[in-house]
Amino acid sequence: MIYLDNSATTRAFSSVAQVVSDSMQEQYYNISSPYSKALETEKALISATKIIALSLNADPKEIIFTSGGTESDNTAILSAPAGSEVIVSAVEHHAILSCARPLEKKGCKMIICPVTPLGTVDPAALKNLVNENTYLVSIMHVNNETGAINPIAELVRAVKEKNPKTLFHSDGVQAFMHVCTDVKKLGVDMYSVSAHKVHGPKGVGALFIKNKTPFTPFIYGGGQQNDLRSGTVNVPGICGFAKAIEEISSSNSFAQKLAKIKSAYTEKLLAIPDSKLICPNSAPNILSIAFLGVKASSLQNALEQEVIIGKGSACTSRSSKVSHVLEAMSLPLNVAEATVRISFGAFNTLEEVNDACESIEQKIAYLRKYKRK
Amino acid sequence: MIYLDNSATTRAFSSVAQVVSDSMQEQYYNISSPYSKALETEKALISATKIIALSLNADPKEIIFTSGGTESDNTAILSAPAGSEVIVSAVEHHAILSCARPLEKKGCKMIICPVTPLGTVDPAALKNLVNENTYLVSIMHVNNETGAINPIAELVRAVKEKNPKTLFHSDGVQAFMHVCTDVKKLGVDMYSVSAHKVHGPKGVGALFIKNKTPFTPFIYGGGQQNDLRSGTVNVPGICGFAKAIEEISSSNSFAQKLAKIKSAYTEKLLAIPDSKLICPNSAPNILSIAFLGVKASSLQNALEQEVIIGKGSACTSRSSKVSHVLEAMSLPLNVAEATVRISFGAFNTLEEVNDACESIEQKIAYLRKYKRK
Repeated sequence: MIYLDNSATTRAFSSVAQVVSDSMQEQYYNISSPYSKALETEKALISATKIIALSLNADPKEIIFTSGGTESDNTAILSAPAGSEVIVSAVEHHAILSCARPLEKKGCKMIICPVTPLGTVDPAALKNLVNENTYLVSIMHVNNETGAINPIAELVRAVKEKNPKTLFHSDGVQAFMHVCTDVKKLGVDMYSVSAHKVHGPKGVGALFIKNKTPFTPFIYGGGQQNDLRSGTVNVPGICGFAKAIEEISSSNSFAQKLAKIKSAYTEKLLAIPDSKLICPNSAPNILSIAFLGVKASSLQNALEQEVIIGKGSACTSRSSKVSHVLEAMSLPLNVAEATVRISFGAFNTLEEVNDACESIEQKIAYLRKYKRK
Repeated sequence: MIYLDNSATTRAFSSVAQVVSDSMQEQYYNISSPYSKALETEKALISATKIIALSLNADPKEIIFTSGGTESDNTAILSAPAGSEVIVSAVEHHAILSCARPLEKKGCKMIICPVTPLGTVDPAALKNLVNENTYLVSIMHVNNETGAINPIAELVRAVKEKNPKTLFHSDGVQAFMHVCTDVKKLGVDMYSVSAHKVHGPKGVGALFIKNKTPFTPFIYGGGQQNDLRSGTVNVPGICGFAKAIEEISSSNSFAQKLAKIKSAYTEKLLAIPDSKLICPNSAPNILSIAFLGVKASSLQNALEQEVIIGKGSACTSRSSKVSHVLEAMSLPLNVAEATVRISFGAFNTLEEVNDACESIEQKIAYLRKYKRK
């Protein structure tokens, strides 16, 4: 069975599982406690935080840990004060878009910026929406369905030109470890990442918050993490996250490896008649492709004993509705319905490509034949 | 080194660490996905949920998973709609009390119910505070510093007599697996628990929400957990939580074992001159005791190479301020400053008692002598 749904989630590295398991039994002390065993555990946290911060070119003090990408996104966007405006793109993850309701309750307005047919945000279009009341703009770095890469640095410049006070958040969950996520180069004020998308543990995420950025906590309590995110710090999970980053960073050119695999798949799959690449310039981990005449869910279903592929985002993949992302890109219905997501991770190899593509080709042929009868 | 700070956090059972580690590598599929591997993972989640629900005598549908006790508490209390009133006790955990600020922002009022000198809430006093605008009452089951057990069933009755529409939440983080936490018997509408206080993984908690209870999500996104708590579900962590409960439930009378250990400590430590039991009728996992003339932090510090004990709650244990709990109980300052928390877990034994108490006695004698000089 070949797993090609790494954008939904990844298998943890065995070294990550080992770190988590060891830490749960040895570094279990509560780092809020004053005794030396707790301080030793805190040291492990500090080391892990440094690794995670470094991977974003951030200062460790600029990182808070959360329960995952969704909490990181909620934390960023719901920090908007009552009465302000927030601009997001039409293709954001639901962790952003679903905040429209709680924002509205606070008297905030969520404004949706459309995307181009390639699924990215146009800096001029975004700039046009920014006004003096725009508290926050949130535009994802890499789209989770199409792999489309937004020009974040350019978007930040456009926004700040119009209103220097507007904060810029980016959901980097799919970008992290796959494209350059240097927060200084990107110029973002906040940036969300998640561990389980990069072979780390589930239930662990981080939010970069640039030094001096105004910030309201999302979770209140014992004042952990400099009072920015309360709750007993999940040291084993965070150490596992750091271990995953170390593993990926140590394997020379992880992103390049994925890019090669993606390129091999792309070439083979585009040779199938009536196939259509949805997003030509996309991140190395995600291949979005339509096989016309074959419903994505039918292909996913027919393939699953041999190859696991995705369809839309995992969260909504059981629904039969066309994804809001493909809709926002104005894809014709027949293309959108036929679009699958094939996504790569550390456990994929070039050796799998032939077998996987053969299975995909066979199932497509079968489904097309079956449909015609 | 004898660890007696289990109320701060516990060491994970090795079987729990194994379950988490295995699950991270085998049941890593995203349970929102439609393919059979994801459905197998979902089955594991369903089994784990049943175990956790059963331990509360709840229906699995009444359980949502969170990132821990703090998020569970925040979720419950911040569900109060704008303009309503919330009553909490003066000795609640900061995960409740710190919500005063976000509640105030919503135009809600947090009303503090005082406690008796024994640290519990008096039903009549609580009833007196309830009015037609009281949306929620949140009273903890077992206090995390003193082990004081609140008469939750009685408190629920008192509240509902005055206003049947008022919801009752209880923070059961310290009560869970230590006293009876049958939510039907307690009569609560919501109940918070946490895994890492019962030898489970950090970063995992649950919130019981009684069927048909009006509820507003706290975290928005992909609609996981019936749209009640979004975010990729942390199946490995939840399976680890269930394993911890299984381990504790299988060891006949876990709470009784702790009660015996506590009683042995109590007897020996009360024999030390000028010692004072803070909470006579308390949960079997927590012993709150003062050794007059010896500052809690000094004793904790002097002991830490041999015995690890607690002082106040872990979150605030690095602070030199007297805890809000002991203050609310109107303890004289000299008693409050001398109060330590000794808390027990599955790895403690009766065999440790002599050694631990000898160390404690020696350090107390030393500190008292030193102070006199």
